[in-house]
Amino acid sequence: MATLADIGVSALINILTAFAFLLAFAVLRIQPINDRVYFPKWYFNGARTSPRSRGGNFVTKFVNLNVMTYLTFLNWMPQALKMSETEIINHAGLDSAVFLRIYTLGLKIFVPITVVALLILIPVNVSSGTLFFLKKELVVSDIDKLSISNVRPESIRFFVHIGLEYLFTFYICYMLYKEYDNIATMRLQFLASQRRRAEQFTVTVRNVPHISGRSISDSVDHFFKTNHPDHYLCHQAVYNANKFAKLVRKRDRLQNWLDYNQLKFERHPDKRPTRKTGFLGLWGEKVDSIDFYKQQIKEFDKQMALERQKVLKDSKSILPVTFVSFKSRWGAAVCAQTQQSKNPTLWLTDWAPEPRDVYWRNLSIPFVSLTIRKLIISLSVFALVFFYMIPIAFVQSLANLEGLERVAPFLRPVIELKFIKSFLQGFLPGLALKIFLYILPTILMIMSKIEGHIAMSTLERRASAKYYYFMLVNVFLGSIAAGTAFEQLDSFLNQSPTQIPRTIGVSIPMKATFFITYIMVDGWAGIAGEILRLKPLVIFHLKNMFLVKTERDRERAMDPGSVDYPETLPSLQLYFLLGIVYAVITPILLPFILVFFAFAYLVYRHQIINVYNQQYESGAAFWPHVHSRIIASLLISQLLLLGLLSTKKAAKSTPLLVILPILTLAFHKYCKNRFEPAFRKYPLEEAMAKDILDQTTEPEINLKAFLSDAYLHPIFRSFEEEELVEVRVDKVRVDRHQSHADNAETDDISSPSPPHHVYQPTSPPHDVYHHGSPPQYAYNLSSPPHYGYQYRYDVDT
Amino acid sequence: MATLADIGVSALINILTAFAFLLAFAVLRIQPINDRVYFPKWYFNGARTSPRSRGGNFVTKFVNLNVMTYLTFLNWMPQALKMSETEIINHAGLDSAVFLRIYTLGLKIFVPITVVALLILIPVNVSSGTLFFLKKELVVSDIDKLSISNVRPESIRFFVHIGLEYLFTFYICYMLYKEYDNIATMRLQFLASQRRRAEQFTVTVRNVPHISGRSISDSVDHFFKTNHPDHYLCHQAVYNANKFAKLVRKRDRLQNWLDYNQLKFERHPDKRPTRKTGFLGLWGEKVDSIDFYKQQIKEFDKQMALERQKVLKDSKSILPVTFVSFKSRWGAAVCAQTQQSKNPTLWLTDWAPEPRDVYWRNLSIPFVSLTIRKLIISLSVFALVFFYMIPIAFVQSLANLEGLERVAPFLRPVIELKFIKSFLQGFLPGLALKIFLYILPTILMIMSKIEGHIAMSTLERRASAKYYYFMLVNVFLGSIAAGTAFEQLDSFLNQSPTQIPRTIGVSIPMKATFFITYIMVDGWAGIAGEILRLKPLVIFHLKNMFLVKTERDRERAMDPGSVDYPETLPSLQLYFLLGIVYAVITPILLPFILVFFAFAYLVYRHQIINVYNQQYESGAAFWPHVHSRIIASLLISQLLLLGLLSTKKAAKSTPLLVILPILTLAFHKYCKNRFEPAFRKYPLEEAMAKDILDQTTEPEINLKAFLSDAYLHPIFRSFEEEELVEVRVDKVRVDRHQSHADNAETDDISSPSPPHHVYQPTSPPHDVYHHGSPPQYAYNLSSPPHYGYQYRYDVDT
Repeated sequence: MATLADIGVSALINILTAFAFLLAFAVLRIQPINDRVYFPKWYFNGARTSPRSRGGNFVTKFVNLNVMTYLTFLNWMPQALKMSETEIINHAGLDSAVFLRIYTLGLKIFVPITVVALLILIPVNVSSGTLFFLKKELVVSDIDKLSISNVRPESIRFFVHIGLEYLFTFYICYMLYKEYDNIATMRLQFLASQRRRAEQFTVTVRNVPHISGRSISDSVDHFFKTNHPDHYLCHQAVYNANKFAKLVRKRDRLQNWLDYNQLKFERHPDKRPTRKTGFLGLWGEKVDSIDFYKQQIKEFDKQMALERQKVLKDSKSILPVTFVSFKSRWGAAVCAQTQQSKNPTLWLTDWAPEPRDVYWRNLSIPFVSLTIRKLIISLSVFALVFFYMIPIAFVQSLANLEGLERVAPFLRPVIELKFIKSFLQGFLPGLALKIFLYILPTILMIMSKIEGHIAMSTLERRASAKYYYFMLVNVFLGSIAAGTAFEQLDSFLNQSPTQIPRTIGVSIPMKATFFITYIMVDGWAGIAGEILRLKPLVIFHLKNMFLVKTERDRERAMDPGSVDYPETLPSLQLYFLLGIVYAVITPILLPFILVFFAFAYLVYRHQIINVYNQQYESGAAFWPHVHSRIIASLLISQLLLLGLLSTKKAAKSTPLLVILPILTLAFHKYCKNRFEPAFRKYPLEEAMAKDILDQTTEPEINLKAFLSDAYLHPIFRSFEEEELVEVRVDKVRVDRHQSHADNAETDDISSPSPPHHVYQPTSPPHDVYHHGSPPQYAYNLSSPPHYGYQYRYDVDT
Repeated sequence: MATLADIGVSALINILTAFAFLLAFAVLRIQPINDRVYFPKWYFNGARTSPRSRGGNFVTKFVNLNVMTYLTFLNWMPQALKMSETEIINHAGLDSAVFLRIYTLGLKIFVPITVVALLILIPVNVSSGTLFFLKKELVVSDIDKLSISNVRPESIRFFVHIGLEYLFTFYICYMLYKEYDNIATMRLQFLASQRRRAEQFTVTVRNVPHISGRSISDSVDHFFKTNHPDHYLCHQAVYNANKFAKLVRKRDRLQNWLDYNQLKFERHPDKRPTRKTGFLGLWGEKVDSIDFYKQQIKEFDKQMALERQKVLKDSKSILPVTFVSFKSRWGAAVCAQTQQSKNPTLWLTDWAPEPRDVYWRNLSIPFVSLTIRKLIISLSVFALVFFYMIPIAFVQSLANLEGLERVAPFLRPVIELKFIKSFLQGFLPGLALKIFLYILPTILMIMSKIEGHIAMSTLERRASAKYYYFMLVNVFLGSIAAGTAFEQLDSFLNQSPTQIPRTIGVSIPMKATFFITYIMVDGWAGIAGEILRLKPLVIFHLKNMFLVKTERDRERAMDPGSVDYPETLPSLQLYFLLGIVYAVITPILLPFILVFFAFAYLVYRHQIINVYNQQYESGAAFWPHVHSRIIASLLISQLLLLGLLSTKKAAKSTPLLVILPILTLAFHKYCKNRFEPAFRKYPLEEAMAKDILDQTTEPEINLKAFLSDAYLHPIFRSFEEEELVEVRVDKVRVDRHQSHADNAETDDISSPSPPHHVYQPTSPPHDVYHHGSPPQYAYNLSSPPHYGYQYRYDVDT
């Protein structure tokens, strides 16, 4: 058990770490050479094309020599606060703005709660006598003297805690209601203010039935011409190009190697680079690298030409999925919300995601298998959450020194060295766990992909939910109840339902110090690490060194990323849970959470303004999940308080606390009815209003041309004739503000933001494959969770 | 514990009771005087206008003297089987046909299961040794020797039981799948074969917002003209006429008394009937009854005229609810399935129920209160299910002899008589419980009404669900676990979740004899009582004696009722539960259930053909509930078997049985996705096909006239000018088959059935109030659960 002094030391260490990170950030960010790592957003939206530098000489191009800028090293904070919310929405989308609102919500909720809880509960707890009754069995820390543990059993003071639980619940519900209301309004305003976009007119249709003697396209045309005669416009068939896309990815990798070798050769023209032909270039015949890769790429091009023909000619490559477009938003809204066919598993319609949000690979999953996939993944998530320790313990039992020596006897002399041995003994057992936790988000994302969702945004929300369950069970409950989740599950199954909150509740106050440390390590230092962007920094400079030839290559080497919702949202929700649970139990924990929320708010505001480049716009579709998980936190806190108090023999209070969860649930249900449809459906009133507006302002618009290939698989842009590509891209260049018909993204002219939303898939490193046509698409090769065809905002330079 | 002989005796008694009922029915049904009690359906559909009688003399008009007909007293059974399913659908609607299919499903499921279980399990159980290990603690019956209790712990024979549980689960799931598929197809065919009906074109719109300076009607017109410009036709405002309806009901009651007295006077012209003016006619001044009632009715008429003016003139009596009609089924389908307004709690659309299915009174409930109402009712149902014994025990403690003597001391001499005392002592304590159980369905129906559903069919489904929970907890679990539900709840809360199935599972085999007796008393004898229709028989003859003057009055005295879904469906589901749970545990119970299903099937087939007159047609909307409750039964049986086996130390089998519930749940989810939309939504394909058919066959139809007052509150038909009424009714008479514009019910010309669906609210006993216009409406005064304005099929004579 930690004393107050221990906590102080821990806080000091973490504050110093955080400051070290901040200092490093402050120094690194003002170096022109790092400008593309810390301010990529401005490059993407076209506001910057080269690093800011004050001097004109060679050195100042890379290093900042201005001493003044070092002194004001925290000035990014006020800068981050300058931009208004409306500007943020224009600059980085509604998703980002609402994401930031979660942090301000945290502040709005916890500032008053902290004040009230500290002022009222600390005196109540401290003055309430001693922990004499516990001393025999448990070591008592100073923190515990400030907590509810210090109150004598059967004390009347518990009614203060119950009263505050009521007060806090009502206050949090009130804030949640206001926030939901706000965000729903923001979402509707955002959707209403958007200009014409392809997804407003388009629905996805899954499970198009095969009718013998008729192509999929014909069936779709016939079905929608019959059943939506006044509204149907056209449709976009979806081809199964997964194999082709794989080839393209491989070819791009080869292209990168070619670039690397060519650059190497240019720098040292005296020595042509070579490589071995065998596995991973480790053995085999030595060949000239440049020739080798050129040869390989040539072969790939042939293969790809074949595959391309196959995709286009083979009718089997047309998937029973299609994007159907309508003449009006009203027609699309109607089709998306209604059941089409007598057989409810055929002709399934839903809103189309944005073109850049589509996860193409999953469109080829047969609809029939979705139920089974979902079942299997649910079971796997359950197993992962509760039994993940089993394989890790198994690996750990293997990954000891004896095992290592058996597998690799040649390492024995090294391992037997004393200091290496002790290092390995301390290191190996934890290694498996650390690797697992590092790749966990990737595993969860892959699981979500197996579930078969067809939008990146849905995938991220699903992965986020899974991560939350994992954290709830293994971080929150796991830390409190001690022992692996599997052991807990077993003991819970054998305990009575009323015993569980009691078991957990009673050990909650004792874990406060642990969670305070957790908040400081994971929250404070973690967020400070987030702003430093160490990984992208290193990767950028590596790429810069080995691959970049032109200024354009350098831009492409920038990897702004986007807010990592699958990881940040669940941990955010964990902090809400901690704050709400400990508010009445150990209020001293609250200030630490407050610091987290304030600091994280600043950091993410800075990152969203300067770094992240949103990958898709879901219109804050994640908010209902955040809301319901805060509600879940409230319920958990009420149950645990109930359990805790029942061990304090304050049984009279039980009926009082039983009412609270019921009221909370009723509130949740009300909010769901009141606001959730705004996030799931598109009201006809809204659709009609926008349609009418369009008709009056632009009655002559050629919608068909506008929608024609908005939902073309990105791979297909390379299929068409060069001329066509030429024309299309020229149009984009000449007429950037008007009707980017081929990429379905229009700018909001009325908004003051610069023309940065020019929606262009990035191009591959070189245009060899494009036969000189302007760069049109690219496949992101980097991080595994973003696997697939990833669109990126880009600006042609 | 009952022995086999005890069961035999009990079976004999119940079989004799059932036979006595059947015999009584056989005798009573062939008496011409009872013809209207046992064959009312034929009167309502116009196939009969007077009782069949073979002779012409006075006696044979009332009593059947033909001896031959008495000998063939069971010939109603083959008669009941004669009608084909298609004919039943035409004769009594899809609801009735699907209701009967539940019984055949029961037979299809349990006949093979019974055979397999008896052939395999009885030998396995009997030969498996003795119940030696139990003998010390429990009394063992013969039945137990045939059950799983007889198998030694740790026996390998348990794998036979587990294997059969698997087999039965798969078989039941397969049958359920086939049945769901069948019924979904039947429903769609039924809907497709229906001719033009008002509800196909109409949606209910709730929570129409009040816009200042605009009437509700104007808002509705404006909103739908804007947002459904091509499809909106017209709308029907809803008036709050609840108070007026109450007056009408009271007036009808007075009218009945007047009729009674007039009849009395006609029969005994020498003595004018008198009554006292005080409370219930018990004291006060003596007056002439006929004059008194005439005077009262006159006053009521005045009051009603005032109220009528108020409803029509006061704009506040227009409710924010409206029935909106569309030009096409497609338009209505679209409006019903989509969200209309930005604020998801305004302009809530849903399919309109049939006009006769509308529960008008609930339309005036403010939408805001619905969430709270639902919450309160959920809590009340929970309390009712688990704590209903508390108030009853309280009443019982009061309703003893001392209490009675204290309340009514003048009764003391009577009570003190010995035989009366012993009778009361045996009778009083059970009285409260019996009264409670008798009025329980009514209580549940009132609760459902408070929840605010606007269709009778929904109300009945909700009441049925509540009754099922009550039966599950208090009949099934209550009988097994012994003790009140409240005690069980308490012990379950303090037991571990794995302990609960164990506690219940272990006592299941021991309760087999109880449930066998239950099936015989409640199932066999109960169903035989159902066919006898004792209550309607008595009421009909009483009415016949005191109120009936003309042949028309006699017809009105018929009370065919309709299938009592809120009571029959839950008990049916209980039998499924019993059969499924005991199939592998005590298979000897199965034949009893088989007899129940077969017998009940015959009886209900007879009743549906000859007696019941369906009150509404929901298109088998109750089926998904039946399906999911059978699935729930499967889950319960699997859990209980798991619990039972774990006490038999057959722990190795646990993993095998854990898989089964997961598979069952997955099957349920699949069925839900696959079939349920057919019961909740109306596919656009279907709507469009019917629209096109209509356009080609009847391009000239005046839809507006057809829909004009389909959804007029029944009370309003009396509001309009006599001429209008005259015209409307004439139209109906002349042109019965074509466009009953005012009552929204058309006959299926193509069907061979007689023109019996002429949808006419029944008329009040006398036309005084109607100033000579043909009878137009009536309010059912009888049973409380059917409270409200009830439509009845009727034929003008």
